[in-house]
Amino acid sequence: MDLSLLKGTKDYLPQEQILRQRVLEVMRGTFERYGYSPVETPILNNFDLLSSKYAGGAEILKETYRFQDQGDRDLGLRYDLTVPFSRIIGFYGGLHKQLSFPFKRYEVGKVFRDGPVRTGRVREFTQCDVDIVGTSDVSAEAELIAMAGEIFDALDLPVVVRINNRKVLSAVLCGCSVPSEQVGPAILSIDKLEKIGWEGVCKELREKQIEQAALDRLNDFFHITGAPEAIVSALAERLEGDLAEEGLGELTRLLELLPAAGFQGRLKLVPSLARGLEIYTGTVFECFLVDQKRIASSLAAGGRFDEIIGRFLESEDPCAYPAVGISFGLDVVYEALRQRGVEAPGTVTQVYVVPINTQKESLKIAGQLRSAGFNVEVAPPGKRIKKLFRYANQAGIPFVLTLGEDELKEGKVSLKNMRAETQQSLSLAQAIEAIRKALQPS
Amino acid sequence: MDLSLLKGTKDYLPQEQILRQRVLEVMRGTFERYGYSPVETPILNNFDLLSSKYAGGAEILKETYRFQDQGDRDLGLRYDLTVPFSRIIGFYGGLHKQLSFPFKRYEVGKVFRDGPVRTGRVREFTQCDVDIVGTSDVSAEAELIAMAGEIFDALDLPVVVRINNRKVLSAVLCGCSVPSEQVGPAILSIDKLEKIGWEGVCKELREKQIEQAALDRLNDFFHITGAPEAIVSALAERLEGDLAEEGLGELTRLLELLPAAGFQGRLKLVPSLARGLEIYTGTVFECFLVDQKRIASSLAAGGRFDEIIGRFLESEDPCAYPAVGISFGLDVVYEALRQRGVEAPGTVTQVYVVPINTQKESLKIAGQLRSAGFNVEVAPPGKRIKKLFRYANQAGIPFVLTLGEDELKEGKVSLKNMRAETQQSLSLAQAIEAIRKALQPS
Repeated sequence: MDLSLLKGTKDYLPQEQILRQRVLEVMRGTFERYGYSPVETPILNNFDLLSSKYAGGAEILKETYRFQDQGDRDLGLRYDLTVPFSRIIGFYGGLHKQLSFPFKRYEVGKVFRDGPVRTGRVREFTQCDVDIVGTSDVSAEAELIAMAGEIFDALDLPVVVRINNRKVLSAVLCGCSVPSEQVGPAILSIDKLEKIGWEGVCKELREKQIEQAALDRLNDFFHITGAPEAIVSALAERLEGDLAEEGLGELTRLLELLPAAGFQGRLKLVPSLARGLEIYTGTVFECFLVDQKRIASSLAAGGRFDEIIGRFLESEDPCAYPAVGISFGLDVVYEALRQRGVEAPGTVTQVYVVPINTQKESLKIAGQLRSAGFNVEVAPPGKRIKKLFRYANQAGIPFVLTLGEDELKEGKVSLKNMRAETQQSLSLAQAIEAIRKALQPS
Repeated sequence: MDLSLLKGTKDYLPQEQILRQRVLEVMRGTFERYGYSPVETPILNNFDLLSSKYAGGAEILKETYRFQDQGDRDLGLRYDLTVPFSRIIGFYGGLHKQLSFPFKRYEVGKVFRDGPVRTGRVREFTQCDVDIVGTSDVSAEAELIAMAGEIFDALDLPVVVRINNRKVLSAVLCGCSVPSEQVGPAILSIDKLEKIGWEGVCKELREKQIEQAALDRLNDFFHITGAPEAIVSALAERLEGDLAEEGLGELTRLLELLPAAGFQGRLKLVPSLARGLEIYTGTVFECFLVDQKRIASSLAAGGRFDEIIGRFLESEDPCAYPAVGISFGLDVVYEALRQRGVEAPGTVTQVYVVPINTQKESLKIAGQLRSAGFNVEVAPPGKRIKKLFRYANQAGIPFVLTLGEDELKEGKVSLKNMRAETQQSLSLAQAIEAIRKALQPS
């Protein structure tokens, strides 16, 4: 029997899963403190929904798992959480008027991609999406960025948030006389600036028939440096027209609102940032580790997508459902923590109770320890004490509490602190106190 | 665009999902206090693994979603969490010696069934499995039953735990001269006793060629009533042989250990209980609502399956991995709570901050309220106050905090308790105190 996993999928054993759950707890707790409520949508979907022309686009559709069920229904596994979110908005909000707007929700769930597996690309992974729909105000962006900052602070991961505005980027391209039919393809190349450098971008743009004069002018725009406010001023001096004014106005307000929203982190305005072509209409942002050497992907990213839901729902007004969201990659955040040396124990168990001919009494003591709030395991009978201590040691259990007949008579227990390698004879109350003290974060 | 769901799948909007998450928190917290650590396994699996002859059996295989990926690999969606658990034990425990035994884990995850949809049977649902592998001692069963009792106590759901032992049931059938080749089919009928009554069982058994004399003797066995201990004694008087002795010994020890393990709930020994044919080798148990009128399914169920993992792994000794586990149905527990009138709010938000020309100051106050531990949402600008209060009311947000320019000057906020319909002008510190008091569970 072949017990290996399908390539591109992963098992999480306790040591990994305990840390992943801690990350999720921080995320969920923060999402909720910002007033986002949880929803859950199915993994199985009608294929029609996933293949709607306004859903993920051709690239993503190619990688959608598709199959028939026993009733010959055409099904697919969701490849993101945005399509189910759009469906919920349309069905419960648009059709049945059950939702109040702005509607703020988060969803944590598995998504699937039937594509080639390489570093950072797998077939099954967990997304954590937070979105608000029903407001065009840029305070929503400020809130999401502040929330991300709070989460990475809580996880002790120093990040820099890169921001831009798609309206400004489009205005830059128009201002540099990039022909309108070339704006889309050019954005895809420009978006790679940090990855492939300006020379790489130019090479691609030349292949896309962008003229040298335009490249020279773009070069000026994308190499403006300085504080975000200074870059906005520099762009305002050089750009004209409604689109530029609107986009720069949004950036200005965002920069004003961020400190009030509680964001105190590192911020970088990157005029070349687009985050792909398809979705975003205004603000875009992404969070990277400050020390980007090892983890090249963003830990979280998002932006404003005012038209996707409206288009997806074939609404008359494509902007009927203005929305902005952020998506956290659970696995990349986990990787970032691991590489900073953060480790979870191999077990949740904090106290290992070892009965020596005292099974019933030991079970009772285990119950009392659990009532005191500890995670407790009781050793099965019939094994040698030495072996049980070895088990506790291997599993990484911090305390072993032994209860023999002598201890029982004296009303005592024997408590071993496995890290400190100290052993004491204590009353149960004293043992509880000692464990509590030792487990407190210093 | 058709926005409806695939039949047999479900959306959970905030009001449902908030309650589901509370249930999961109680479960996870209790699992961990009993020393079970979390793992996560993939939903996508090689079909070979799912169709192994010792996996779920033909019935379940028929309902397994199966498809090819772009690389023509034969894949399937997991239909339970036991096969992935067995794979983990085999791969990390058996092959790579990475696990210490007894290994205690829980997994919460989605499973899929491509079958007909009817009451209580859906295509995608969440299972919560807790298992321990590597011990034959019946204290493991006692622990799991006590743990289930603690969970249902915490959820305020009064349950009765029905127990039996498969060795005893087999001994009963042998004792009643049911031919050995008929024991399996007979057990499947007898298992339905509570559902279809003794007459129904007899009808099925007659169709299976069980003689009337055997039926009369079985009738006596399955109608022994009384406390569990009394039933064990009555069975012990009537049964002979090693199997009976072993099974009754296990039951006796289980009954002795349960109070020590902290179980104080209702217990019923049901000599006809089998819980299906395939898996279980010893103790079986299931938890039902005491008031069983509305919810006919068990809220949790499990038992000892000493041979499944060994067989699945084609181990020489089929009992190399003795195991016992319990599975909680998240959706049925949720249903039980709903029917007892338990309701979650429609949003996680506790305070709705409404700025009146004070957006930045209101964002700051929202941050301070979040630091105080509350879930806070800030109203977007440009909407009428009346509309915002209506939103808060519809969403079920308990507090609205308004901040106008006058309040700002006076260093006050205006706090409205939406349930009590009272409004007060308070300092922020007073408001925090008032909210905290009102939100405390009484």
